[in-house]
Amino acid sequence: MKIICQKSDLLNSVSIALKAVPAKSTMPILECMIIDVKSDTIKLIANDMELGIETIVKGSVVTTGNVAINAKVFSEIIRKLPDNDVTIETDENYMATITCEKAKFTIAGKSSEEFPMLPVIEKKAPVTLSQFTLKEVIRQTVFSISDNESNKIMTGELFEINQNELRVVSLDGHRISIRKVKLKDSYDTLKVIVPGKALQEISKILSGEISDEVDIYFTDRHILFEFNDTIVLSRLIEGEYFKINQMLSGDYETKVTINKKELLSCIDRATLLIKENEKKPIIVGISDHSMELKVNTTIGSMNEDIDISKEGKDILIGFNPKFLIDALRVIDDEEIDIYLINPKAPCFIKDKNETYIYLILPVSFNAAVH
Amino acid sequence: MKIICQKSDLLNSVSIALKAVPAKSTMPILECMIIDVKSDTIKLIANDMELGIETIVKGSVVTTGNVAINAKVFSEIIRKLPDNDVTIETDENYMATITCEKAKFTIAGKSSEEFPMLPVIEKKAPVTLSQFTLKEVIRQTVFSISDNESNKIMTGELFEINQNELRVVSLDGHRISIRKVKLKDSYDTLKVIVPGKALQEISKILSGEISDEVDIYFTDRHILFEFNDTIVLSRLIEGEYFKINQMLSGDYETKVTINKKELLSCIDRATLLIKENEKKPIIVGISDHSMELKVNTTIGSMNEDIDISKEGKDILIGFNPKFLIDALRVIDDEEIDIYLINPKAPCFIKDKNETYIYLILPVSFNAAVH
Repeated sequence: MKIICQKSDLLNSVSIALKAVPAKSTMPILECMIIDVKSDTIKLIANDMELGIETIVKGSVVTTGNVAINAKVFSEIIRKLPDNDVTIETDENYMATITCEKAKFTIAGKSSEEFPMLPVIEKKAPVTLSQFTLKEVIRQTVFSISDNESNKIMTGELFEINQNELRVVSLDGHRISIRKVKLKDSYDTLKVIVPGKALQEISKILSGEISDEVDIYFTDRHILFEFNDTIVLSRLIEGEYFKINQMLSGDYETKVTINKKELLSCIDRATLLIKENEKKPIIVGISDHSMELKVNTTIGSMNEDIDISKEGKDILIGFNPKFLIDALRVIDDEEIDIYLINPKAPCFIKDKNETYIYLILPVSFNAAVH
Repeated sequence: MKIICQKSDLLNSVSIALKAVPAKSTMPILECMIIDVKSDTIKLIANDMELGIETIVKGSVVTTGNVAINAKVFSEIIRKLPDNDVTIETDENYMATITCEKAKFTIAGKSSEEFPMLPVIEKKAPVTLSQFTLKEVIRQTVFSISDNESNKIMTGELFEINQNELRVVSLDGHRISIRKVKLKDSYDTLKVIVPGKALQEISKILSGEISDEVDIYFTDRHILFEFNDTIVLSRLIEGEYFKINQMLSGDYETKVTINKKELLSCIDRATLLIKENEKKPIIVGISDHSMELKVNTTIGSMNEDIDISKEGKDILIGFNPKFLIDALRVIDDEEIDIYLINPKAPCFIKDKNETYIYLILPVSFNAAVH
């Protein structure tokens, strides 16, 4: 095979495909990227057996063929080449020669025969939304997946489609994050669990532009994202997701309205007194016009008042400050509403239309010390 | 003691003093910073026994006194406070209360009695130069100090003053870096060895402005830098520096003039084929109008030609590419001259006036393979 591409086009596509290359694998062929050259297209293909990516590179085809090439070395070479035409040529022994201006690299490739190509997915009617929206809902929920593989379902996110609404849910046993977005069209009801790691990789290659779209196709075992000459295919996680609707009671005893930025800065300040392995809570005391936050650790103590408006009862409740910070960071509203029931029941941060709901479990604390 | 300072002034001074706080010490008091409040000045003091810093903070004094406070915790608290007036107050038990707007931190301080205060240095006539120049000569030489403590002298830099010239030298056994700068005034001859680590810390707090000056004072055991309400005191390394003048012969067999950026990019590309622990050289072949660079490793091979102008013999010579990269990165000239003698003798990169000289030892290589 022999192709000629612009360095910038090649680098862009290589960076996309690289997201599906495992850092280290017991199958060395997976550390390769396939350059697959047909008479009319140049494709880069990578696959870590959970996530697979195929992306088309702009360029001219001189002769067709394919090669498996170490993805890390290949991407570093392309990255460091001058900004000009890059020629890639392989011989019958899969030796690949990469030439750009006067620089010439030779690296040994392999036959792509052993490489697990992506399964062919029958593309039925896609769910379409903007890349911006998909990237946002991933960012706004993926932090609360669990990284503990012993409960596989918690490492994924629920994607639930109901007519013209997409609901994305993640939970880790201490908190639940829920985002709802409206779709332009209506679809059949559908529930799948998508691996969180795949979503993190996909969100890195989505453009983030409102005007760019992404088509999503579902099968029994896979979810396929198609956008900008790229397809990303992920296995689904099998099993039944948690019944979260019954955890989302509408009752509350206390409702607080507070400036988000002030609350976030205050919790951020308080956490610097908490050492990494010290599970100290932040104590939140809510009275008529103010929220008092307190932290008391081996390093020292901190307290601060924030003006609020409040409905309902006074309450004293403890939280893992990290969980509050994670949720507050991904909420764009300037003023937020927090709903509380009692010091042992979960608190809810949500907007009126419930486009977002962040449920956080409190932690117990020794009130006498505080 | 009680003081009131602007958060930004306080943060600026804390960041300066922090450079002399050891990450971990067998003497816990050294992990503290002293806040020393006299009727007319507020000083922050830190000292790791090699390097000591005293810096004045703008602010108002309410009551005098002093306290030793954990430097890391203190700096993190100040960093995260709102941008406003900060009040710091201690009680008779050295409990420190830090207040800013509605935020209030309480942390336990200590008496500063145990703290090793900086020795008082008799300030004779200083050597004065711009902070820009000092920062530059440090950056342009400090990369070739040795980090091997077994030869203490190599971990330092020679500061040599001769009339109106300052010469700064570092070497690690494989290379020598030399920078000369002209001073406005003439001084007595002087030779000291300054710890490289101290210079790295100082260069971080120098402003880098040509119009800002720094005064340098020397004693038998110390070097003291004074600038912007800050003094930085470093112990000197005892002993005699290497006799480098006799290593700087003026003879050469080959002189190459080459575009620096092209050479640097080319070596940078070549190194990506070299794994971290693989000591593979870059082979440089110089003929009439071109320099050919070659690397051949387990990952693959690379070669590239660069146009040059040349005087003298052809030569084939091997180098540790890192040493070439380190030197080329800190040379600002667009075109550079490289002087070579034979494949076993050091090469010199230097300008006509020898304001910089970078000597690099070659490495042997198996010519048959290349």
